[in-house]
Amino acid sequence: MNQKIGKASMKPELPVYILSSASVVGPKEGEGPLGDLFDLVGEDELFGCNTWEEAESNLQKDAVFLALGKAGLNPWDISCIFAGDLLGQSIATSFGISSYEIPLLGLYGACSTCGEALLLGTVMIAGGFADKVLCVTSSHFASAEKEFRFPLEYGSQRPLSAHWTVTGSGAFVLSRESTIKRPILATMENCVLNEKKATRMSKNDTQKDIQSDIHARACVTGITTGKIVDFGLKDSMNMGACMAPASASTLEQHFIDFGSQPNDYDKIITGDLGRVGQTVLIELLKDRGYDISKVHMDCGIEIYDEKEQDPHAGGSGCGCSAVTLSAYILKQLEEGIWKKVLFMPTGALLSKTSFNEGKSVPGIAHAVVLEAVPS
Amino acid sequence: MNQKIGKASMKPELPVYILSSASVVGPKEGEGPLGDLFDLVGEDELFGCNTWEEAESNLQKDAVFLALGKAGLNPWDISCIFAGDLLGQSIATSFGISSYEIPLLGLYGACSTCGEALLLGTVMIAGGFADKVLCVTSSHFASAEKEFRFPLEYGSQRPLSAHWTVTGSGAFVLSRESTIKRPILATMENCVLNEKKATRMSKNDTQKDIQSDIHARACVTGITTGKIVDFGLKDSMNMGACMAPASASTLEQHFIDFGSQPNDYDKIITGDLGRVGQTVLIELLKDRGYDISKVHMDCGIEIYDEKEQDPHAGGSGCGCSAVTLSAYILKQLEEGIWKKVLFMPTGALLSKTSFNEGKSVPGIAHAVVLEAVPS
Repeated sequence: MNQKIGKASMKPELPVYILSSASVVGPKEGEGPLGDLFDLVGEDELFGCNTWEEAESNLQKDAVFLALGKAGLNPWDISCIFAGDLLGQSIATSFGISSYEIPLLGLYGACSTCGEALLLGTVMIAGGFADKVLCVTSSHFASAEKEFRFPLEYGSQRPLSAHWTVTGSGAFVLSRESTIKRPILATMENCVLNEKKATRMSKNDTQKDIQSDIHARACVTGITTGKIVDFGLKDSMNMGACMAPASASTLEQHFIDFGSQPNDYDKIITGDLGRVGQTVLIELLKDRGYDISKVHMDCGIEIYDEKEQDPHAGGSGCGCSAVTLSAYILKQLEEGIWKKVLFMPTGALLSKTSFNEGKSVPGIAHAVVLEAVPS
Repeated sequence: MNQKIGKASMKPELPVYILSSASVVGPKEGEGPLGDLFDLVGEDELFGCNTWEEAESNLQKDAVFLALGKAGLNPWDISCIFAGDLLGQSIATSFGISSYEIPLLGLYGACSTCGEALLLGTVMIAGGFADKVLCVTSSHFASAEKEFRFPLEYGSQRPLSAHWTVTGSGAFVLSRESTIKRPILATMENCVLNEKKATRMSKNDTQKDIQSDIHARACVTGITTGKIVDFGLKDSMNMGACMAPASASTLEQHFIDFGSQPNDYDKIITGDLGRVGQTVLIELLKDRGYDISKVHMDCGIEIYDEKEQDPHAGGSGCGCSAVTLSAYILKQLEEGIWKKVLFMPTGALLSKTSFNEGKSVPGIAHAVVLEAVPS
C-alpha cells in the first residue's frame, strides 16, 4: 500500500519507473565535463530563436520530444505533464510544451522544481491515476540573468559566491511498468527535430537494437517533500548559502522519516548548492549528527569545469539538476555503478520584486530516492 | 480503485472531502454581493502591511490560519500544502505560509491554480499518500496591476473588457474522512489572529455547538486536467476572451471523459471569465454540441455588483475562484441547494515579458467535480 512515512515522506507500494529521459543544453554546458553525455547541445544560447525566453521554451520542447522518442511514445500516451521553470509566470513552460497538447500541471519550486515534478509524477502514477507522466524543467543563463539580476549588456561583475545559471532542460517519462515494447520506428534518428540546431547528437541510443524492449533507467522508491526554510539571508548573489538550510532540513527529515543514514546511499545529490552551499550543508548536518561529506555530490559543481570554465560558485537553475540527472546520474544507476541515490534539487525563493523590497531569500528542497532497476 | 478516465480525467475510488475552508478578502470584495459570506474582510488593501506583496502574503497566512482553526487542526496535522499565486516566482506564497512549516508543493497555473491545487490534493489523498492536505491560492488587485500592467499611480484607463483582480485568498483543508471530532477549544474565537485588521468577522461558526463533530462541506468525486489552449489572442486587457477557449476545451473533454452532459450539474462554474469570456465560452460549446447557457456561472461575475462596483468585465485572479468557492459555492452544497457542480478555475498564461515580446496569451483550465456530502 502507498503510505505516508513520518512527517514529510511517502513511499509508493511499488516503484515508479523512469522509462526514458533526455537532456538538451547550451554550448557552455556542452563543453563541460558532462558534455559528451548530453543528448543535444545547442550551437549558441539562442537555439535559432529570437529571444532568450523563446530559446528556453525551445529547450523544453526538444527535451520532451527526445524523451518521448526514446521511449517510442507519442504525446497522447502521456496522461499529464508536470513542468516548470524560473521565469515569471513560468512562461518558458507555457510557450514551450503547449504544442504537445498534453494536460499540464504547472509547478513552481524555483530550482527545486525537477524534484517536485518527479515527486508529484510518482504520486500520480503510484496513486493509480496515470500510467505514464512526463516531467520537464528548464533554465537559461541569459533569461535568468534578465529575470533576476541585471541586463547582460551591463557587463556587471559577479562575486565569487554567484552561480552560473545552466542553459538546459531535462525531461523524464515516468511509468508504472519497468519495460515496454519498442515500437519499430522509435529510434533516435526519428527524434532529431531540427538537426541544424544541434552541433552534436549522442549516438548511444541509435546503436541499440531497435527490436529490443525499452527498459527503465531507474526507479523512484521514496519521496520527501520539503518546507520553506528562511535563515534571513538577503544576498541574491549567494544562492548556495540561501538554499543550504532548506536542503539540510529536508535531508534531516528524510533520514528521520525513513530511519536511514547517509551511508545507506551511494550518493546524496543536491541540485545547485555549489561550493559555498555544499560547505554550509555539510556543516549544518554535522551539527545535527549526520556526516554526509563522503557521499555528497552537487549537480552545480559537476556540470562545469571549475578551473577552465570559471562558473564561480557553480551551476544553478531548474535545468541544472534535470540535465545532470538525465545525462549522468541515471547513467550511473543504469550501469549499476550506483545502486541507490538520494536526488534533492534545491530552490531559492526570490523574485526581483521581493529582492528590491528588501526581503530575504528563503529556500526549499524536495528529495526523491532513486534506485537501480534489478536486471 | 482510483482510475484514469478517458484522455484527461481521473476518478478517485472514494470521495475526498473538503473538511473546512476560509476566505479572506479586501474591502471592495467585502462590499460586493457575497460580502457577508466572507470570513474576514480587510479594512484597506494593505492589511496593515508595508507593500502590496506583503499584504497578499498576509491574505494567504490568514486564510490558512482560519481554515485550520475551523477544522480544529494544527499545522502539523497537515501532510503538505499546495499553494500558488500570480506574482513572479510566486512570492506571495513563499513569504505567506512559511511560518506554518508545512511541506510545500508550489504551483503555477495563473488563475486556474485553485483548481490545480484541489486536483492534486485529491490525488495525494486518494492515492494513499496523505490524510489531510491544505490548498491555498491568492491574488491582490494592486500587486497584480504592478506585476502585469501599469503602476497604479499612472491612473491608466482600463478598457471595458478588462478585469478587476480580486484581493483575496481562499484556503481549503482536504481530508480522507468526512467527519472528525472537534477539539474542545477549536472555535472561531480562537482563530482571530489579529482583530484589528478585520472590520467584520463571520459569526456563522461561533454559534455552532463546540462539542459537535466537524462535518465536511463537500467532496471531490472527479477531476479533469486541462491543457494549454492558444487561440493567438494578444490582448492582456481582455483575459476573458484569452481564457475561454481553454475552458471550452477542458469542459468538452470533461463531458467526453465522464460521458456527462451540462444538465448533469446544478452549476458549471468557471473561475474568472467575466462577461466577455462567458459569451465566448457558451458560443464555443454550442458549436461543439453542448448548451451550458442555463447552468453556467462565473465567479468573476458573481463577486462584484456590476452596476454599483463597475469591475468592467468582472473579477479575476487566483483568489477570485478560491474565495467564491469557500464563501458561496461550498455553502450552497452544504445546504443542499446544489447537489453536484463542476468547479473550473481558468488561467491566462502571460507575463509582462511575454506580453512585451509580442507573444499571445494562452489559457488553461482545470476542473473538479464537487458534490454535496450525504447527511
